[in-house]
Amino acid sequence: MIKSGIIGATGYTGVELIRILSGHPDVELMYATSDTDCGKHVCDVFPALRGHVDLQLVEHDNDSLADCDLVFFATPNGKAMHRVPGFLESGVRVIDLSADFRLKDADAWSSWYGEPHACPDLLAEAVYGLPEINRDSIREARLIANPGCYPTAVTLGLLPALRAGIADSRDLVADAKSGISGAGRKAALATQFSEAGESFSAYAVPGHRHHSEITQTLELATDAEIGLTFVPHLVPMIRGIHATLYLSLKDEATNVQGLYEQHYKDEYFVDVLPPGSHPATVSVRGSNHCRIAVHRPGNGRRLIVLSVIDNLVKGAAGQAVQNMNLMFGLAETTGLTAAALVP
Amino acid sequence: MIKSGIIGATGYTGVELIRILSGHPDVELMYATSDTDCGKHVCDVFPALRGHVDLQLVEHDNDSLADCDLVFFATPNGKAMHRVPGFLESGVRVIDLSADFRLKDADAWSSWYGEPHACPDLLAEAVYGLPEINRDSIREARLIANPGCYPTAVTLGLLPALRAGIADSRDLVADAKSGISGAGRKAALATQFSEAGESFSAYAVPGHRHHSEITQTLELATDAEIGLTFVPHLVPMIRGIHATLYLSLKDEATNVQGLYEQHYKDEYFVDVLPPGSHPATVSVRGSNHCRIAVHRPGNGRRLIVLSVIDNLVKGAAGQAVQNMNLMFGLAETTGLTAAALVP
Amino acid sequence: MIKSGIIGATGYTGVELIRILSGHPDVELMYATSDTDCGKHVCDVFPALRGHVDLQLVEHDNDSLADCDLVFFATPNGKAMHRVPGFLESGVRVIDLSADFRLKDADAWSSWYGEPHACPDLLAEAVYGLPEINRDSIREARLIANPGCYPTAVTLGLLPALRAGIADSRDLVADAKSGISGAGRKAALATQFSEAGESFSAYAVPGHRHHSEITQTLELATDAEIGLTFVPHLVPMIRGIHATLYLSLKDEATNVQGLYEQHYKDEYFVDVLPPGSHPATVSVRGSNHCRIAVHRPGNGRRLIVLSVIDNLVKGAAGQAVQNMNLMFGLAETTGLTAAALVP
Amino acid sequence: MIKSGIIGATGYTGVELIRILSGHPDVELMYATSDTDCGKHVCDVFPALRGHVDLQLVEHDNDSLADCDLVFFATPNGKAMHRVPGFLESGVRVIDLSADFRLKDADAWSSWYGEPHACPDLLAEAVYGLPEINRDSIREARLIANPGCYPTAVTLGLLPALRAGIADSRDLVADAKSGISGAGRKAALATQFSEAGESFSAYAVPGHRHHSEITQTLELATDAEIGLTFVPHLVPMIRGIHATLYLSLKDEATNVQGLYEQHYKDEYFVDVLPPGSHPATVSVRGSNHCRIAVHRPGNGRRLIVLSVIDNLVKGAAGQAVQNMNLMFGLAETTGLTAAALVP
Repeated sequence: MIKSGIIGATGYTGVELIRILSGHPDVELMYATSDTDCGKHVCDVFPALRGHVDLQLVEHDNDSLADCDLVFFATPNGKAMHRVPGFLESGVRVIDLSADFRLKDADAWSSWYGEPHACPDLLAEAVYGLPEINRDSIREARLIANPGCYPTAVTLGLLPALRAGIADSRDLVADAKSGISGAGRKAALATQFSEAGESFSAYAVPGHRHHSEITQTLELATDAEIGLTFVPHLVPMIRGIHATLYLSLKDEATNVQGLYEQHYKDEYFVDVLPPGSHPATVSVRGSNHCRIAVHRPGNGRRLIVLSVIDNLVKGAAGQAVQNMNLMFGLAETTGLTAAALVP
Repeated sequence: MIKSGIIGATGYTGVELIRILSGHPDVELMYATSDTDCGKHVCDVFPALRGHVDLQLVEHDNDSLADCDLVFFATPNGKAMHRVPGFLESGVRVIDLSADFRLKDADAWSSWYGEPHACPDLLAEAVYGLPEINRDSIREARLIANPGCYPTAVTLGLLPALRAGIADSRDLVADAKSGISGAGRKAALATQFSEAGESFSAYAVPGHRHHSEITQTLELATDAEIGLTFVPHLVPMIRGIHATLYLSLKDEATNVQGLYEQHYKDEYFVDVLPPGSHPATVSVRGSNHCRIAVHRPGNGRRLIVLSVIDNLVKGAAGQAVQNMNLMFGLAETTGLTAAALVP
Repeated sequence: MIKSGIIGATGYTGVELIRILSGHPDVELMYATSDTDCGKHVCDVFPALRGHVDLQLVEHDNDSLADCDLVFFATPNGKAMHRVPGFLESGVRVIDLSADFRLKDADAWSSWYGEPHACPDLLAEAVYGLPEINRDSIREARLIANPGCYPTAVTLGLLPALRAGIADSRDLVADAKSGISGAGRKAALATQFSEAGESFSAYAVPGHRHHSEITQTLELATDAEIGLTFVPHLVPMIRGIHATLYLSLKDEATNVQGLYEQHYKDEYFVDVLPPGSHPATVSVRGSNHCRIAVHRPGNGRRLIVLSVIDNLVKGAAGQAVQNMNLMFGLAETTGLTAAALVP
Repeated sequence: MIKSGIIGATGYTGVELIRILSGHPDVELMYATSDTDCGKHVCDVFPALRGHVDLQLVEHDNDSLADCDLVFFATPNGKAMHRVPGFLESGVRVIDLSADFRLKDADAWSSWYGEPHACPDLLAEAVYGLPEINRDSIREARLIANPGCYPTAVTLGLLPALRAGIADSRDLVADAKSGISGAGRKAALATQFSEAGESFSAYAVPGHRHHSEITQTLELATDAEIGLTFVPHLVPMIRGIHATLYLSLKDEATNVQGLYEQHYKDEYFVDVLPPGSHPATVSVRGSNHCRIAVHRPGNGRRLIVLSVIDNLVKGAAGQAVQNMNLMFGLAETTGLTAAALVP
């Protein structure tokens, strides 16, 4: 049994980790921390877990966490970087679901996240935890930078075309839509039911942190220059990300459907749909799958890729567990095979 | 033109007042106050009002408010009572949408609202602003206690039966359901989209402040002893209240449908539906109407009354404008005749 | 492995059965039938099942179904009764999720469901599949009448009080609220997103079929005369039932909380919450649990019980699998231990 | 008073017309037709209109409609074209909210709408009813082709940039999102609450009828060659369209904000928001406004325009009334000045 702990267990990615781990046969969740609910039982905060988890929330800096084989950080950005070095020195492996180790360049990180990075030396070592790109490195990693939700959906959708070099990598548009749980579990006015319900809007059009994460990942994965326009939107639903991706093909003769199917034929969690499909976010609700469809209206040069994930699963906690499975030599799908909840 | 001001204009009842008054031909909104957004333009806070309102938000205690003919308090409970005496002395009439003047008994008020009442002497003078009961007193009032949302729906639904004495006034059940805007416009965890969406629950079953308000109103209106069980619930929708009311008839022979139709035949804003109807909250969304249906399954002694309102209109701002119309000698329906927004 | 088939697999209870069975270690789903989608692959109808199920939909009357150990009927009411006798003769056990075998009285069934019953002789044999009442009979049954969603929530909430005789069984009110999936998976105007969204209403107040089912179950379980008022409502959410139950206690001294905890202390799927709780339907979304809270405002004679289930799980497919586990000697919780999906 | 009739009054655009006209001072709604609900009272179908409208639904081909000054067609596509010639001959002016007269080319119409056009001779005469482009022609028109919802939002967002020639007209992407009422008021499986709720997906990516309408309008309005990629999506909300428009600027020095403000400075219903804004669809719910924001991330060549409308108002019935006001010499804003319903 892998002895594990979750730091920041009462946010949405934290509680989703608890939910998934509660059904995982090879992991024991020994510690879960919370600053706001420290001392309470997990089930007092999340009655849905009654009967599934028996654990009291402890403070973030509980020393006993050093006994774990693995610690997940599900904290807001800027927290993990202060504690990761200590865990690594104690021989504890770390999967960080926040953004602290996602960018390779410390200056870029600082400019996006508004403070100096606390341990820039670890940025090079941290492995970007997208198994479909970095599977082998993840197996050996001490420190995983678990990808953001938008970057997971967008990268998986663009990768086959860009790796194959069939589209102009400098002319990419990612129009992305997220359910509101992506904003996190906290009291905020903008995400109140009566504010965000029955409405739709874009946000952060001038610039969003995930833009740099996507660009870096695609550049490393393709060695090409990336020119990306990225616009996120908020959808009045709880879970789900839908990325609508616009590319310009270099050659109209390309068999894009075949290329995508071939690219992902061995990936359990990436599902290329039949021609003509329109994946709905509900088809992955609660599941670790990414479903992708490719379209070329009028068989022209415009390629449109539709990519959906559950932002809390493949976009966060599920991907973290997928990474954990790889790090600890388990079957990659362990604990992640439940079907989506429909309707 | 009635010169008016709104204190607490950036809550949901406040902005709903602005919306309704923006279409009212006989009122000029001269001042709108906000503690959180003071200094901003109303339309910076509510872009939906661009083109309809041109007003800068000022601080709560702006002296110029004394120039108004009428001030609306749309503040949280416990604020209005500190300032109402001053306005009355200046000759400014007041409609208080908060709960400060709804209970006649200062001790009862204190026990429910957790602090001593600041001006208990005014409790007797304040007129409970339910025109269907107190129309004449409202016309003469200096100070209106605008009813709560649940009390409006429940009282209008119970009143005909209790006034006629056809049901046992000591055995009443009001199972009430409210849209989430009833919780107000503020950052809170429980009413986040991802917390309150796709879920339904009761709250405050051990005791809710509106219980005493309903009981007092019914006792004053019927001279009977009232025994009421009141359970509120939260519905994953923005606007609307649905009260399901259970009464025990004294006599199976009563023509309840006829009684209700007769009782409200002259009330523009109370609509008794045909036999067999099930009013939906959407049928009053954005409108000042209350729609009521009465049922007697199997023609037995159990009477079930269904009563729906828009909590922000007939349950708050619309009723306040209805009261204002009465106070200033206007037609009672002025500015309140727009149809509900369906779908 | 239990060889099983689902007749009517493309409704909501049908697809929920597929979802649950896809994670059940001891069942092989061999056949799934559909009248509307016969010939298609299950995953063409439900892309969410891609990667989880590999099965083509066949016609309802496929002869091969007789090879099954167990057949689930997830058909509209009035279908199963025509085919159940044949299956039983072939030695196939049956769990009927429709209402065909829920009432013991054939005349009552006819009057509610509008046609003569096709095999009234089997009504006596059919076991009402609420394990918390009929566990032993279920183990031996050939034919299970799987309970309705409302009856499950209401019965589990009322049972401890009525069995203990602490409340007046002739004065019960069940104010019940259901998510819209309860209306089934079919094209209908009233349950369109734009009709049912952002609204709340009661329906079937003059009489609902589940009234007789609840009454019969309670009478059989308590030997008391039952007088029940039952009002169902539609909530703008997909899954979940919330029953608010009003009872009159005979004696104020009763320890109701203790009684309920004791009553359900050995029931894995029934969770009595701590005093003061308000269960939310989301706390059981996708789970087979029923969560119950009991309240006595002011410690008076009014007892209020709140009971929530997922209408498609404990209210349909999950309970069917629970029954199957009992019928085939498996651990009752097999395949049903996943935590609810929150948020 | 303008004597008017609505053919197809029980769809969403029909009932929205009734709602708006019920508050219009210069119009008398004399007839409303329905094939499905003929003979019923309008308020039996739409209880929300009780107290606002007193009208019985008649059959579509009621002869008395010829007495009207103006007839609105709110029918499905392919109906109006069979009856418009007759009305015009009788001297009745027509505003067609369906697509029958939107395309100038009869062959193009046939290929998109799947049947020959019944009166191709009228296509040239029909005026495309977007007042911000065709105000003068509308004033004189006998026959208005009221624009589609997507075309209204997309065209108003693209027009200033394309008319000014600052962007490449052959490289346009319109990623559009619509509330579910856009699918119309009819029983359909895909738009059931339990199917469309809590999910997001694209549809019609291979080709959507509004693509040709937008292209035609932009070509006529700019004399430029238009190359447009158009992808519509379904949002789990009732009302609202959000178009996210991607353009490539020819010159980085352009003051786009100033250009847009100048272009629409005299348009009451088009609101260019301050720099940095992200319009939400709720800000126009129930209102005839279009709100637009322009963005240039990093001051580069990528121009992003955000454009929101209420699909049933500015995207249908409100725009129809705006056209009617122009046709009959009324102030253009008559009956259309109500503020949006927020929250």
